[in-house]
Amino acid sequence: MNTPTWISRSVSLLRAAPGESGGGAAASPALRSTRERLKATLRRDQEALSPRILRRTLTELQSIVDLRVSEVEGGRRAKAVAEWYATTTPAERRDVWLLISEQFAPDAAKVKGAREQYEAAVGTPEEGRAEIRLRRALVSPRTRLLQRFASFPDGMRFLVDLRAELLPHLKSKGDESARLLALDDELESLFSTWFDVAFLELRRISWDSPASLIEKLIKYEAVHDIRSWSDVKNRLDSDRRCYGFFHPSLPDEPLIFVEVALQDDVTASITPLLDESAEASDLTRATTAIFYSISNTQTGLRGVSFGDSLIKHVVEELRAEFPKLRTFATLSPIPGFKSWLAKNLAAQIEHLDDKQRAELGKVVDFAPPGPSHVLAAMDDVLALAPKSPLRQFIVRCAAQYLARSLVDGKPADPVARFHLGNGARVERLNWAGDPSAKGLKQSYGLMVNYLYDLKRLDKHRHMLAQGKVPASGEIDSLCLT
Amino acid sequence: MNTPTWISRSVSLLRAAPGESGGGAAASPALRSTRERLKATLRRDQEALSPRILRRTLTELQSIVDLRVSEVEGGRRAKAVAEWYATTTPAERRDVWLLISEQFAPDAAKVKGAREQYEAAVGTPEEGRAEIRLRRALVSPRTRLLQRFASFPDGMRFLVDLRAELLPHLKSKGDESARLLALDDELESLFSTWFDVAFLELRRISWDSPASLIEKLIKYEAVHDIRSWSDVKNRLDSDRRCYGFFHPSLPDEPLIFVEVALQDDVTASITPLLDESAEASDLTRATTAIFYSISNTQTGLRGVSFGDSLIKHVVEELRAEFPKLRTFATLSPIPGFKSWLAKNLAAQIEHLDDKQRAELGKVVDFAPPGPSHVLAAMDDVLALAPKSPLRQFIVRCAAQYLARSLVDGKPADPVARFHLGNGARVERLNWAGDPSAKGLKQSYGLMVNYLYDLKRLDKHRHMLAQGKVPASGEIDSLCLT
Amino acid sequence: MNTPTWISRSVSLLRAAPGESGGGAAASPALRSTRERLKATLRRDQEALSPRILRRTLTELQSIVDLRVSEVEGGRRAKAVAEWYATTTPAERRDVWLLISEQFAPDAAKVKGAREQYEAAVGTPEEGRAEIRLRRALVSPRTRLLQRFASFPDGMRFLVDLRAELLPHLKSKGDESARLLALDDELESLFSTWFDVAFLELRRISWDSPASLIEKLIKYEAVHDIRSWSDVKNRLDSDRRCYGFFHPSLPDEPLIFVEVALQDDVTASITPLLDESAEASDLTRATTAIFYSISNTQTGLRGVSFGDSLIKHVVEELRAEFPKLRTFATLSPIPGFKSWLAKNLAAQIEHLDDKQRAELGKVVDFAPPGPSHVLAAMDDVLALAPKSPLRQFIVRCAAQYLARSLVDGKPADPVARFHLGNGARVERLNWAGDPSAKGLKQSYGLMVNYLYDLKRLDKHRHMLAQGKVPASGEIDSLCLT
Amino acid sequence: MNTPTWISRSVSLLRAAPGESGGGAAASPALRSTRERLKATLRRDQEALSPRILRRTLTELQSIVDLRVSEVEGGRRAKAVAEWYATTTPAERRDVWLLISEQFAPDAAKVKGAREQYEAAVGTPEEGRAEIRLRRALVSPRTRLLQRFASFPDGMRFLVDLRAELLPHLKSKGDESARLLALDDELESLFSTWFDVAFLELRRISWDSPASLIEKLIKYEAVHDIRSWSDVKNRLDSDRRCYGFFHPSLPDEPLIFVEVALQDDVTASITPLLDESAEASDLTRATTAIFYSISNTQTGLRGVSFGDSLIKHVVEELRAEFPKLRTFATLSPIPGFKSWLAKNLAAQIEHLDDKQRAELGKVVDFAPPGPSHVLAAMDDVLALAPKSPLRQFIVRCAAQYLARSLVDGKPADPVARFHLGNGARVERLNWAGDPSAKGLKQSYGLMVNYLYDLKRLDKHRHMLAQGKVPASGEIDSLCLT
Repeated sequence: MNTPTWISRSVSLLRAAPGESGGGAAASPALRSTRERLKATLRRDQEALSPRILRRTLTELQSIVDLRVSEVEGGRRAKAVAEWYATTTPAERRDVWLLISEQFAPDAAKVKGAREQYEAAVGTPEEGRAEIRLRRALVSPRTRLLQRFASFPDGMRFLVDLRAELLPHLKSKGDESARLLALDDELESLFSTWFDVAFLELRRISWDSPASLIEKLIKYEAVHDIRSWSDVKNRLDSDRRCYGFFHPSLPDEPLIFVEVALQDDVTASITPLLDESAEASDLTRATTAIFYSISNTQTGLRGVSFGDSLIKHVVEELRAEFPKLRTFATLSPIPGFKSWLAKNLAAQIEHLDDKQRAELGKVVDFAPPGPSHVLAAMDDVLALAPKSPLRQFIVRCAAQYLARSLVDGKPADPVARFHLGNGARVERLNWAGDPSAKGLKQSYGLMVNYLYDLKRLDKHRHMLAQGKVPASGEIDSLCLT
Repeated sequence: MNTPTWISRSVSLLRAAPGESGGGAAASPALRSTRERLKATLRRDQEALSPRILRRTLTELQSIVDLRVSEVEGGRRAKAVAEWYATTTPAERRDVWLLISEQFAPDAAKVKGAREQYEAAVGTPEEGRAEIRLRRALVSPRTRLLQRFASFPDGMRFLVDLRAELLPHLKSKGDESARLLALDDELESLFSTWFDVAFLELRRISWDSPASLIEKLIKYEAVHDIRSWSDVKNRLDSDRRCYGFFHPSLPDEPLIFVEVALQDDVTASITPLLDESAEASDLTRATTAIFYSISNTQTGLRGVSFGDSLIKHVVEELRAEFPKLRTFATLSPIPGFKSWLAKNLAAQIEHLDDKQRAELGKVVDFAPPGPSHVLAAMDDVLALAPKSPLRQFIVRCAAQYLARSLVDGKPADPVARFHLGNGARVERLNWAGDPSAKGLKQSYGLMVNYLYDLKRLDKHRHMLAQGKVPASGEIDSLCLT
Repeated sequence: MNTPTWISRSVSLLRAAPGESGGGAAASPALRSTRERLKATLRRDQEALSPRILRRTLTELQSIVDLRVSEVEGGRRAKAVAEWYATTTPAERRDVWLLISEQFAPDAAKVKGAREQYEAAVGTPEEGRAEIRLRRALVSPRTRLLQRFASFPDGMRFLVDLRAELLPHLKSKGDESARLLALDDELESLFSTWFDVAFLELRRISWDSPASLIEKLIKYEAVHDIRSWSDVKNRLDSDRRCYGFFHPSLPDEPLIFVEVALQDDVTASITPLLDESAEASDLTRATTAIFYSISNTQTGLRGVSFGDSLIKHVVEELRAEFPKLRTFATLSPIPGFKSWLAKNLAAQIEHLDDKQRAELGKVVDFAPPGPSHVLAAMDDVLALAPKSPLRQFIVRCAAQYLARSLVDGKPADPVARFHLGNGARVERLNWAGDPSAKGLKQSYGLMVNYLYDLKRLDKHRHMLAQGKVPASGEIDSLCLT
Repeated sequence: MNTPTWISRSVSLLRAAPGESGGGAAASPALRSTRERLKATLRRDQEALSPRILRRTLTELQSIVDLRVSEVEGGRRAKAVAEWYATTTPAERRDVWLLISEQFAPDAAKVKGAREQYEAAVGTPEEGRAEIRLRRALVSPRTRLLQRFASFPDGMRFLVDLRAELLPHLKSKGDESARLLALDDELESLFSTWFDVAFLELRRISWDSPASLIEKLIKYEAVHDIRSWSDVKNRLDSDRRCYGFFHPSLPDEPLIFVEVALQDDVTASITPLLDESAEASDLTRATTAIFYSISNTQTGLRGVSFGDSLIKHVVEELRAEFPKLRTFATLSPIPGFKSWLAKNLAAQIEHLDDKQRAELGKVVDFAPPGPSHVLAAMDDVLALAPKSPLRQFIVRCAAQYLARSLVDGKPADPVARFHLGNGARVERLNWAGDPSAKGLKQSYGLMVNYLYDLKRLDKHRHMLAQGKVPASGEIDSLCLT
């Protein structure tokens, strides 16, 4: 690590406090209090930065938000800190996060005064003014600090990456995770404003897009891994469309992207879509757009949602280009099905009627069939014949999982949660839709189509808000309850 | 005004509440409370919209932020309201503002609960979490409402124009102005985030820019009016530069722009710069960049400051293009001087020493000279000879005004406030710098150069923060105190 | 004039030929022949350049096409000559033209050999090879010279301007004009290839186009002068379209442009189209595109025709943007009518039948009416009532002029020649269509619509090729013969 | 093959000539002559198109250049023919070429008249006019025909591909190749004008370029095959540059491209440059640009040279971006060396002095060494030690080949011919510079650096014109003669 230029600058700041490094002379009150707050923030034997560097880092961060310093100069100082930060170790970074989270909180006394005025003013003509004062009191130095980091080129990149690195620490037990929450939440709140859909640009990504951008599709694709350049070229063929949302501050990164296939019916299997040797389908006959992969790319933007808007904007683009399109649907994985079934198998067997249970028993060679027998029989699902009672049972369980299982009022499956939250409905289950190892591992190879019926999106959202999952008649008839 | 489609939609909503329009049957509690809140918001005999339209408007606004409605759908509804709003009268618009300001305030009960938790948590590991909760409680439905308006194309334009129209109402006496404050402040707060300098793009404006853009320079130029296309062409000549800040949501509008002349010394008069017949100066000899006009264009963005960043970014652009540039200065008007002097003339005469006062007396034919005598003599300042004691007195007063007059710790003159706030210093006064009628009316034709000494900007800001206006030795020596 | 760098270079070339400037020693044969050819080219007492500069210029031009010199280096030398040329006087330039025209002709001996082989080979399998040899023999050093000038940025501009300056000299009597013909023709031939329509780009010009480009419309508009920026803004309003052809080598110049008004019928007068205060017409009702002004901008490109392609490309653009357009017509001046009528008045009176002649006689107060009486009565045509026999006579003469007067098999009127040559037909005459001074002076205020009936363009061209002007029934019925 | 629309149109043309298909009635003279010319062009039992289709094709081609047809309509007809042509067989295409080559030749009678006038006019003031007439007489219908094909989008692509397919037929014996020469030459001549360097755009190709463009590098790279996307990514790394020439009529195709490595000395081996795992070199230390691959992409543009200009433009780009660059050199293959040496081995052994020959004899175990012994010993050249007499002999032969072997006054090696023709000199031979199978096969693994000394390019060209190959002292000292 190169000593950043600001270190040497900070040294001269310290010289103004002669008593500090020795133990004898009294430090100036301001510095002492700084030191105490630092002690509170960084309990000894944990911190990675030396006390000396810690203090300097704090001083440096404070100088960024110093009110006497212009925004431009503040941004310049933030940039210097970001460059130094790039050279630090993970443990050192954690110290920096704690500094930002705890040392730049709102001024509690100011908040108290403002809220007292506010509470007195509610319902009076002064309410508006008091509301303003309270909101301003809550704008923490931390907010200003993060804004300065966003102000230089690559500063947004810095903040998004910082949060991506911070997020895993929030899951840890112990109070460190609690102590980082304020920083995480402030970042999420700022990102929500900065990355508001109004500021995103929808761009088509095609084989004529920069290779450096297409390389990012390969890197970020999260649903069906892209194996090679010929794989991605196939996904950008004449019968496909790919769109991403871009933000001016991260100009070369799609924040989220979706892959679409234009077909003449609702696709039941991912296999032909990923087959590089298959011919492109005839665009003049396309009636159906299949969204077969949606990937978020920036972990650091967790909690900022683009997906709903992306799909709706893409639907508009597609309708403008292909006026004959009538049907908009997904071909989606069911990532949580297999693990859910493992936990809920007994209950599902319970739901069967006697005849169904008897038939299932025959297949698994045990009557009545117990969860362990059924599980044992599910080793090679791809070999099951269409009429196999076991296969029918699995499909029924999947319908049950998607259309009946709610957790906290929301669909249990994460992909279902996304599409149903957007107003889609569960349309059709597809046996062996994804026969890959990943598909088998997640959902016994099953895939599902969610249908976006543009006239019923809000109706479906209302149904869901009332605890009822919108689904096709076929799906409902498969459900066990 | 066409009846917007949502009106007919709203009608059916109303039908669901049969008792409402009559007085007899009991309205549903929700509607009754809505009616009461409406009554509180809009004291009868003031509102312009009929109660029926008012209620529908409120319903419509509420449906925009309905949590069961998707962001995309919310944006679509906001757009419909904006289209209707475009057809309303000023008085009707005031009603809409009051609705937004008062009916979409934070939930006071939720705020109270959150602040109690927060106050209990300050200093504990729970502080972060409590801070988050409190901040979220303060995110009002109004915030969400305004965000939806920003989400469609032209929505930002709608909000900026709405605030431009609202601002004059805040100056009125009476409590209406107080009641609109919350809306105004929320808009300013959102604009500050949305129009953060990090999201602005600096673009050069030249004679090769779109005519529709150059037409906007003509429209918005606020310092030295642009009289014609040949006037603006002269200001975009080879020895000039013009830069503006642009935002993706208002793509064709410069938010602020600056006009620069490249010279071989610090210009003392605006006249040659506006002379269309003057030849362009020789760029190879340019050592000095003169910022001779800076204009904000969007009243609705008042309080969001771009000027400091603009100048600093422009300085960087200019240095990259012309490495020989050494001096960056303004040629600025002194808009508040004449009216300040009218009020402070007696005091300035007091500041004179006896000899000065005597000389001044001779010129104005009265000893000792009183304010009225001096004022009377200032009818034709352009005719004053360089050594005229009256002229010298005026210059001294101007120095005094610029370098000694602080109001609330800030320079009294608005232009001084801007440049000194950026870290510039008062450099030189220029007699007859602007001999136009406007120049004479504002400042007896005086203009001033502010110098941007790039190495001392922060030093100057610190001086100013301590109550001392940074000025050249020449200016300081002119000051009367 | 600065001495160009090549002059000093040439000096050293001359030093290598010591005998040259003196008369005594024998010059090298090559140089002597150069001197003789120069003498032939530039008859003493006419040339403007001194013999010394002339010789150097020739040497310099020769060095550009020296086969041992790379194309890149040749282009660099051409650029140096062009820079020097920019500083010369008109008379000096004429010397340069003669040098290029006469000193860089094809090698007559080589041409003779090649044509003998060719004539022997016609009809044999060797014909192709012989044709090649002959064509190559005709590629003169002049061709290569001009190609080098086209190779540097602004080189094409140089050549186009050179020809624009040269063209007036071709009209002069005496053999100088004959001696410049070869240069002129070679330029036209090269321009025809370089500016082939295949390499032109059709671009829309709108109020969002660069001001510097719109300024060129003002400069080049040749039909209805553009008086001001508000005039041109009106011509780029929402109910107008303007398109130009651009070439990569003259990127900022429209080579030709056309102004179009979108209307709901065929416009009869230019007045409302040029009325800046008139409201834009309703685009949704537009059925008719009126081409009301077409201007070539580059005199130097005379003989290279773009107009036909321009109109046809513009028709395609318009149909794509406005599928409801049904009619494509012009509103055109009749620039040659008044002067033609002055010469042909007696004949036209002859064509009248007795009754017509008698009525005309009454109006002009003379029976039978003679040309001078009629002319005298035509002083204030705008005052003539619709049924005035004089007015009817003028209209009949105009129909006769447009639909019956051929010169060398082509329409007499230059604008008619252009549109009829493109396949349009004469559709309608419009009394007082252009009541401006210019309109009155050219055509007694008459304007004409030419109709582009897309399905009959080639049919009309065939009619014209057979000596019959395509015209509407109305026009034909007006004709006197 | 779909029957093109023009076929059915042609049918009706034929109907107008009833006697044609039968033998009885007399055909119209025009048609008869057409038939006879056709017979001359296409000797029976060779042609692939039926006589009926042939005649129609001819008619169709003639209608394209019909003078009564507008250029726009002509272009439209040419497009229809091109679409039909796309469906034909190779043999049918050959018939089309013969039609174009022989049926659209210049009018021999007109040429004869024009050349007689010209020969009479040479030396008189009429020479210019006569030259024009002769040149115009030589502008064949074929020229106009090919121009029409160039006029529609993709028309240039059509012509370039047509010539690429035609070229191999020119090498065949027999008079067919002679009969196609005129078409080939006319195409080359038109391409030379259309693809003049003045109309080419130099563009950098980087990893941010469209994937579809980078894919073309992979396809067209002719020197060192690109094996994969990671190979091409390495060649576009931060220490590399790639530039191509583009033409507006083939917008997505680089016509030629060059790959450059930025180094701190002249590279001796291709191996590190193609090593994907090697780190990018430090740009701040780059003093040397190595051109290590230059590929033409369009066979159909043979004879149109871009390479010289490309290198010189690239040198300018590089100097602008990297002012520290001092040396511009190639690292080039020697494709003709091995086969040349096989033919000239005996002579080279002759050139050795006795001592050298004796040492060589020892290595190959035979004294005196004969060609067959030496050849036998050259099986595994990569194993030869630096001081091996055999290795030294091979290097001497390579120097001899590059710096002494001229064919028709030009370097024997095609790559040498290109670079030396541009003004470079032979700088250094690099043993094992390309140890790949291809490198061994072409040149025993030897590579050569050509040096572009910018100040001596024209000097070197002059040397070469005088029969002397410019080479470094080191190379000259290696030569055997």
